[in-house]
Amino acid sequence: MRSHHRFFVAFALALAASLAFGTLALAQTDPLPSWNDGATRDAIVSFVEKVTEEGGSDYVAPADRIATFDNDGTLWIEQPAYVQLVFALDRVKQLAPQHPEWKDKQPFKAALEGDMKTLAASGQKGILELIMATHAGMTPTDFKQISKDWLAKAKDPRFKRHYTQLVYQPMLELLSYLRANGFKTFIVSGGGIEFIRAFSEDIYGIPPDQVVGSSIKTKFEIRDGKPTLVRLPEMNFVDDKTGKPIGINQHIGQRPIAAFGNSDGDRQMLEYTKAGDGARLAMLVLHDDAKREYAYGPAEGLPDSKVGTFTQALYDEAKKDGWVVISMKNDWKQIFPPPSAD
Amino acid sequence: MRSHHRFFVAFALALAASLAFGTLALAQTDPLPSWNDGATRDAIVSFVEKVTEEGGSDYVAPADRIATFDNDGTLWIEQPAYVQLVFALDRVKQLAPQHPEWKDKQPFKAALEGDMKTLAASGQKGILELIMATHAGMTPTDFKQISKDWLAKAKDPRFKRHYTQLVYQPMLELLSYLRANGFKTFIVSGGGIEFIRAFSEDIYGIPPDQVVGSSIKTKFEIRDGKPTLVRLPEMNFVDDKTGKPIGINQHIGQRPIAAFGNSDGDRQMLEYTKAGDGARLAMLVLHDDAKREYAYGPAEGLPDSKVGTFTQALYDEAKKDGWVVISMKNDWKQIFPPPSAD
Repeated sequence: MRSHHRFFVAFALALAASLAFGTLALAQTDPLPSWNDGATRDAIVSFVEKVTEEGGSDYVAPADRIATFDNDGTLWIEQPAYVQLVFALDRVKQLAPQHPEWKDKQPFKAALEGDMKTLAASGQKGILELIMATHAGMTPTDFKQISKDWLAKAKDPRFKRHYTQLVYQPMLELLSYLRANGFKTFIVSGGGIEFIRAFSEDIYGIPPDQVVGSSIKTKFEIRDGKPTLVRLPEMNFVDDKTGKPIGINQHIGQRPIAAFGNSDGDRQMLEYTKAGDGARLAMLVLHDDAKREYAYGPAEGLPDSKVGTFTQALYDEAKKDGWVVISMKNDWKQIFPPPSAD
Repeated sequence: MRSHHRFFVAFALALAASLAFGTLALAQTDPLPSWNDGATRDAIVSFVEKVTEEGGSDYVAPADRIATFDNDGTLWIEQPAYVQLVFALDRVKQLAPQHPEWKDKQPFKAALEGDMKTLAASGQKGILELIMATHAGMTPTDFKQISKDWLAKAKDPRFKRHYTQLVYQPMLELLSYLRANGFKTFIVSGGGIEFIRAFSEDIYGIPPDQVVGSSIKTKFEIRDGKPTLVRLPEMNFVDDKTGKPIGINQHIGQRPIAAFGNSDGDRQMLEYTKAGDGARLAMLVLHDDAKREYAYGPAEGLPDSKVGTFTQALYDEAKKDGWVVISMKNDWKQIFPPPSAD
């Protein structure tokens, strides 16, 4: 009888402890099961252990544990075209009946005909025109729903999976691992802030207010007697290259201690992160796995790419300044979540 | 012996429960001790109970429990002048030796001579000129430190207390009460975002990334070989009136379910908040307590004020649309935290 009670007491106290610290189960589980053993994984774990070790010389208070992640090519797939561009092209097709003039007007004509060569030739200006024509005119709430509806239907032609399943499993684990260690995780993307917000909470566990991205302007107006915002066909902010540290300062208000990217568009974000005092972690995903995903650079002799360009100069800067280059091929056990998750 | 064990078991289980839910002590403590009993306080409590009641028709998931607070006149004092303006005037005096031309140039001459009449006559343009001259040229980190240093020294002449102590105790309790009920609390202020970030975490428990405010532009550059941002003398965004819903959408990405203000500058934020579906709470602080703080409107016959103008039209809209007007005089037991906190 006595041991019976003793068991109860021990159990209840263990329960108290595990509820209080929430770590009983976690402590015995590998938080990064999709990462191969090696220097890359070690760099992550040793950084996290350093900055969370109370009393240690590299300790960082939880309020300052800010980690920023690029999205396209860092958290999810970006080849052969940015997902948001595929979305914009589908929108052009869907809206075409209301715009008979598009049949004869570039870049819409090219978009409708699937003429990617002419579309590419229209450059950033052409792409922006498509975005403005398909992303503006509605409220942010309606745009979010349009994005969600599209994401629920559209599938990548090569992998035959929804784009929200073509996220990198090792990065999902990294996000969770950082959050479990008191980090606040943010997306800092050249992509549209409202498009990313349509899935960031469900897919990455990152709430809308922790997404920084490019944006178009909005206008406050009374529509059908109801105060609302309307999206305007006018750029507000381009969150790319030098825009990334600027966007970080505007939205987050603190210099990150860890930053993750995969292209030259992330260079200034990583430089800005590394330039702060104390322990810092800067990582770049190198897409060197043509078999399981894609291989592109042109760093290290990988094929040239206009989408997610990773130049040799960036690679050299990374090596010189102690940034860590993640090799998809060597560092990741698996790329995407298991198909059962679809 | 048996009852002894039973006590242990009961105690351990109670401990487990209290650690898990964190409510054992709280449940027995009034979360809003500085609020008088009455309709205003009831409006807060019944709203929070409604939106947190699982299975209730007004239930709101924690991820959507967004509450936004104006700062000047809603969370802290704004009379006889906005605190940030007092800061800018002190900065003009401090920087004057490096700017001999200011002696003869308005609005700097008026600022240096304490000629508030001429300064007021220079209007918003004059004030902006002062802000640009005193808030730009440095990094955001340096500006934060300059602001912190000033806040640690400067005192309000009437109350002889630091401005960070002239925050409204009932609103501090409201912030905590909302957060304890799963709300994410944001500041949405016409004031400068970086100035507010210098104290929002310490004083309000609101981290830098949950502050929305007016801003000047920044530029990424390499300074002394170190990548950094520099504040430019150029407006980026005015977070006032229709700017508030726009700023909310840009930074938060969700329509708030509760919003708190005190002036016509907050009108659109409250309208936007109330226009959403489901239970909503919109509140305005009316400064009607000349004895303990200030009395100004001009709503309800209170003296006219250029700082924190609360018009009769706003008051009438509030009454018509079910917003709650907080009477400082009648609803608040005390205005500021006890002096011992200084």
